[in-house]
Amino acid sequence: MQLLDEFESYLQKNLPTLETFHPYYQEALQYMLRAGGKRFRPLLLLSVVKAKNPLLVPSAMRPALAVEMLHTYSLIHDDLPVMDDADLRRGNATLHKKFDELTAVLVGDALNTHAFYLIATAALHSDVRNALARELAYNGGIYGMVHGQILDCYFENQKLPLEKLRILHINKTAKLIAASLKMGAIIAVMSEAEQEQLYDFGIKLGLLFQIQDDIIDATKSSEEAGKTTQNDEAKNSFVNLLGLEGAIAQADELAKDIQEMLDSMDSDVADELRTLLAHYITRHKE
Amino acid sequence: MQLLDEFESYLQKNLPTLETFHPYYQEALQYMLRAGGKRFRPLLLLSVVKAKNPLLVPSAMRPALAVEMLHTYSLIHDDLPVMDDADLRRGNATLHKKFDELTAVLVGDALNTHAFYLIATAALHSDVRNALARELAYNGGIYGMVHGQILDCYFENQKLPLEKLRILHINKTAKLIAASLKMGAIIAVMSEAEQEQLYDFGIKLGLLFQIQDDIIDATKSSEEAGKTTQNDEAKNSFVNLLGLEGAIAQADELAKDIQEMLDSMDSDVADELRTLLAHYITRHKE
Repeated sequence: MQLLDEFESYLQKNLPTLETFHPYYQEALQYMLRAGGKRFRPLLLLSVVKAKNPLLVPSAMRPALAVEMLHTYSLIHDDLPVMDDADLRRGNATLHKKFDELTAVLVGDALNTHAFYLIATAALHSDVRNALARELAYNGGIYGMVHGQILDCYFENQKLPLEKLRILHINKTAKLIAASLKMGAIIAVMSEAEQEQLYDFGIKLGLLFQIQDDIIDATKSSEEAGKTTQNDEAKNSFVNLLGLEGAIAQADELAKDIQEMLDSMDSDVADELRTLLAHYITRHKE
Repeated sequence: MQLLDEFESYLQKNLPTLETFHPYYQEALQYMLRAGGKRFRPLLLLSVVKAKNPLLVPSAMRPALAVEMLHTYSLIHDDLPVMDDADLRRGNATLHKKFDELTAVLVGDALNTHAFYLIATAALHSDVRNALARELAYNGGIYGMVHGQILDCYFENQKLPLEKLRILHINKTAKLIAASLKMGAIIAVMSEAEQEQLYDFGIKLGLLFQIQDDIIDATKSSEEAGKTTQNDEAKNSFVNLLGLEGAIAQADELAKDIQEMLDSMDSDVADELRTLLAHYITRHKE
C-alpha cells in the first residue's frame, strides 16, 4: 500500500489554502478531504500509471487528487438533508452537520470546480490535460455521476427493473471509477484500445463496488461501516431488488468476470490492479 | 447586438441533451439556460475575440457558453432556500420552485462540471483550452466566486467595512467578469500584458456591475428587475453601507475609471467594448 501512503501524503500537502477573513471557509474546504476514506479512485488511476511508467507517478498525483476532489464534492452534496440526509461519513460528522447546510453546498461547488483547476495546472502535456478534463467532466457530470444521482433520488420509492437499476448505478458509481482507470491510461500514453479496455473493466468494477456497498449497507451497523447505513430500505439497491442472496450471487459473478478481464489485460497493469483490488473484489464476503 | 443573437442561437442549438428515463432531468438542465438573461459574460469574451480576430468567433462560442453555464449554475445555487431563497430569476420561477430543491442542487452541480467539458472539447489549441480552464476554475471556484458567495452569506447580518465589502464583491462578481475578458484575450492570442490589462478592467467593471445591481435592488420592483428584489435589507450591499447617494457616487467614479481604462487599451478592443458597454456603464441612472 505504498501508493496509498504516497497519495495520502501528497493530498495532505496539497489541501486547498487561501487568504480569507471568513472564519472557517478554509477548514471546511479541507474537512472532508482530510477525513480519510479508501482513496479508491485515485489509487486506480495511479496503479495504471505506476504499472506502465513509474516515472510519471509524481505528475499523476495532481489528476489523482482531482478525481478524489470530484468524488468528495459528490459525497458532500449526497449527504445534504435534501438528498440522503446523512449524519456520518468516513467515520466523521458530515460537512453540513459539522458546519451548516449552506457551507456544505458551497464547499461542494468549490471542490467540483477545483478538480478542473488541478487538472488544468498539472505538469503534463496540454493534450493529456485536456483529455483528462474531458474524461472527468463527461463521466462525473451531466452524462455520468449526476445523471445517476438524479435517477437514484427520483426513483427512490419506485422499484426499477434490473436493467434500469444497472443504468442508474453505471452512471452514479461506475463511470467515475471507469474514468479513473482511463485517466491513468491516458497519462501513461496507452493505446486507445487499452484505454477503452480499462474503461470497460472499470464499469464492471464500479457495479461490483456498488452491489458490495448495498450488501454492506444491509448487513453492517453504521459504526462498522463508518457512515450512516440501513437507512436505505426505500432505495433502489441491488439487495432490495434481488434479495441479499441474489445480490451476493450477482457480486460473485461480477468478481469472476473481473478476474477474467484482468487475465486478458496488459500484464503489468493487471498485476498492479490485482494487488490493489485484492482487498476489494471479495469484500462483500468479509 | 449581432453578437448577442449569434450567441443566443449557438446556445439554443447547444443545450445539454442526453438519453435518460428520468422524466424531467433534461428539461431541468436546459431550463435556466433557456430563460434568457443578459449573457453579459459570454458577450465580454466574444467582444474581445471579435475585435482582435473575427475569424475565431465561431471557435470562441463554446468557451463563451462554458462561462454562461458556470454563471448559471451559480445563480441556481444562490437562489436555493438555504441561500437567497428566491422565487424569481430572469423573469421566471427559480429552478427549485419550478422543479424542486434536490433537482436544483444536482442541475447546478452538473452545469458546473459541464462548463469544463465544453472547454476541454472546444475547437482550439490544447494550450489555449488549458489556459481557459485554469482561468475559469481559478476565478469561478475556491479562489473566486465561491469565496465571495460564502463571505456574502456569512457576513449577511454584520456590516463589513468598505475594504472588506470590496474584497467580497471582487470575489463574488468581479473575478468571473474579469476572467471572461481575459479568456477572450487568451483565445485571441493577445500578449500577457494585454490579458492582465483586460483582467484589471474586468475587476473594475464587475464592481461597477455589483454596485449597480445593489442600486437596482434598492430602487426597482421585482417586476421591473425580473427577479426577486428588495429582500436585501440585511445584506452587505454598497447601498446599505454607503447609502443610495453614496453608492451612486461610487458607481459614477468607477464608470469614469472604466472610460479612462478604455482610452488606454488596444483601440479595436476598446471600440468593441464601448459598443457592448454603452448599455451598461450608466444603467444605474436609468
